[in-house]
Amino acid sequence: MITRWYGSRSLAEAADRVAGWMEDAGLSVRRDAVGNVIGRRGAGEGTFVLGSHIDTVRDAGRYDGPLGVLLAIEAADAAGELPYALEVVAFADEEGGRFPLTFLGSRGWSGDLGPENARLTNGLGEVLGDAARTLGGDPDAIGTRSAPDDILGYLEVHIEQGPVLQDQGLPVGIVTAIAAQSRGIATFQGMAGHAGNTPMRLRRDALAGAAEFVLEVERLAQRTDGLTATVGWIENEPNVGNVIAGRTRCTYDVRHQDASVRDRARDGLEAAARAIAERRRLDLDWLRRDDLPAVPMSPRLRALLAEAAPGAIELGSGAGHDAVTVSRLTSEVAMLFVRCRDGISHHPDESVRADDVAVALDVVVRFLRLLGDPFSPSDRTGG
Amino acid sequence: MITRWYGSRSLAEAADRVAGWMEDAGLSVRRDAVGNVIGRRGAGEGTFVLGSHIDTVRDAGRYDGPLGVLLAIEAADAAGELPYALEVVAFADEEGGRFPLTFLGSRGWSGDLGPENARLTNGLGEVLGDAARTLGGDPDAIGTRSAPDDILGYLEVHIEQGPVLQDQGLPVGIVTAIAAQSRGIATFQGMAGHAGNTPMRLRRDALAGAAEFVLEVERLAQRTDGLTATVGWIENEPNVGNVIAGRTRCTYDVRHQDASVRDRARDGLEAAARAIAERRRLDLDWLRRDDLPAVPMSPRLRALLAEAAPGAIELGSGAGHDAVTVSRLTSEVAMLFVRCRDGISHHPDESVRADDVAVALDVVVRFLRLLGDPFSPSDRTGG
Repeated sequence: MITRWYGSRSLAEAADRVAGWMEDAGLSVRRDAVGNVIGRRGAGEGTFVLGSHIDTVRDAGRYDGPLGVLLAIEAADAAGELPYALEVVAFADEEGGRFPLTFLGSRGWSGDLGPENARLTNGLGEVLGDAARTLGGDPDAIGTRSAPDDILGYLEVHIEQGPVLQDQGLPVGIVTAIAAQSRGIATFQGMAGHAGNTPMRLRRDALAGAAEFVLEVERLAQRTDGLTATVGWIENEPNVGNVIAGRTRCTYDVRHQDASVRDRARDGLEAAARAIAERRRLDLDWLRRDDLPAVPMSPRLRALLAEAAPGAIELGSGAGHDAVTVSRLTSEVAMLFVRCRDGISHHPDESVRADDVAVALDVVVRFLRLLGDPFSPSDRTGG
Repeated sequence: MITRWYGSRSLAEAADRVAGWMEDAGLSVRRDAVGNVIGRRGAGEGTFVLGSHIDTVRDAGRYDGPLGVLLAIEAADAAGELPYALEVVAFADEEGGRFPLTFLGSRGWSGDLGPENARLTNGLGEVLGDAARTLGGDPDAIGTRSAPDDILGYLEVHIEQGPVLQDQGLPVGIVTAIAAQSRGIATFQGMAGHAGNTPMRLRRDALAGAAEFVLEVERLAQRTDGLTATVGWIENEPNVGNVIAGRTRCTYDVRHQDASVRDRARDGLEAAARAIAERRRLDLDWLRRDDLPAVPMSPRLRALLAEAAPGAIELGSGAGHDAVTVSRLTSEVAMLFVRCRDGISHHPDESVRADDVAVALDVVVRFLRLLGDPFSPSDRTGG
């Protein structure tokens, strides 16, 4: 079973292994304060960064994160002479499996954490600074940016975590943007009652209300181009076969590349939930938990990727990635998705094809060379 | 907190208390093999039985079961001279909280258990015969009927466990039949996926399929007179907000006074579930767990109750009761429902009004006298 949480022995061993591979590829390796592993080569006008993460969720697959790191090391090895410095970053924590902080690795790297985060504890009483030390990090330096000051841009290769490339029969895809996302919880409160002795007209069935909401979420997404909307979690009380549900809670998760479309969708779902509750004499509690902005990828880097990968489609990312954090340092961020079997991720069944990885490697190497070419489209279009 | 499971100290104490009250009411008291408490008075042509149960579910209310026992003792005390013997039975287990046997008390009483049941164990390693002993029962005699051979009939008073009497503003109601009931589990199998990266058209969302089924169950009952149909339990996997559901299971519970209507409804729901699954590219597993027949109440005893309770409505019982077991000994079974607040049962909030109980007591006493009256409607209509 693969589980590499921040502070775990398995992650520390993986970080050492990755550092060794970086050295084998001719990179000079260092660790930063939170334990990210950084390999650097070359010099020139600015530094371009390739990165992804090496931590995983619990009982994970093999590719979500590490694929991007290994591919970056290979590309750095294969790219040959470049007119700029290249850094490969293996972020130590993206999934947030151990501490209540998302994008811990890339936030530490980009200077987005404060020194106080070194003392952050989790429910198990573990301290973030101690976990950093297991990775060769330096708790006292947390809060210090390790990203290069002269950053030219950032490219992250990642499995798609979706079925679009498989559906289209394509090995790789160029990400247009990381979607704006809204998440929250709708709670329908009705009245529990005996399933045999409560006539239908006297019921206030919370589960039936939630079921209508689930279908409304699906319908809204089906009729809104590019929108995904999902109820993935439901909790029903008392949840006994012969008792009418008294209270049912469910999540909503709404994503679109365009935050204004996402906003309208979220507000539309709230209105639908209120109408369902009113018609069914239920009480509704509508909790908005997160409303995250969209992160557009760099048009210049997308054009370079398109040049490097003729025939590749562009597609949105519904998931967040380290690129979200990096986009706060520079708008020059890009992502390349690799086809994965059946869109499965966060599961031991995660699978990619070796020839797809070869295509992705080829695309990244060409991309790095185009980036250094004065006649590349990036310069033809004015940068 | 009230919890009187079979074999518990609280139930043993309650049985002793009930036995004492029976003696105070002039009944001669005995225990049978499973520990039912039986009080007897009078003599004559045959024995009429009043009964209900004194065990409870976990964290129960005060009235589901005991109300019928206490009211029977009071009625036996108040009825005066009768031309037949009267027995009051406090069944030791109806809810089945401790052993995997429903109606244990009334089944032991009616001779519906075999001697082997004395050795029945539950998940905790407890043995049924030992539990019987805590109630003054005799494990070696389990399998022996203790119901009178000359049984004239049976009347059970119980809280309604539904809101109909409250809705109609009536203290008591006469039960027409205990409904035929079908129960089972529908399992929708789809494919889990990332909520952000799986376009709507590529989804096989098990929860959305189950939601359609929940609403179909409700719709079918709403358009079928007298049918109740309920999904009270749902289990969703992996049940995470940002993951499309891969598998969702839910119960169905369908009840109607007429078994053929119930059969059609159950089959209609199965067809609907199959259509939903096919349209959504889900797999369906349809489990039929129980198909219980309807138990009609005696027309003669219903007529006597109507005479004893002018203005009372007749209504069906969606729930099973000890009367189901007794109906295997004699078709002469009847039930009287007492209004309970908001239809709440199996909950500490169970509540009845003292004046409603007084009405019920009055009805039972009149019923017992009419039953002994040669000019009662039962005899006018030919018995």
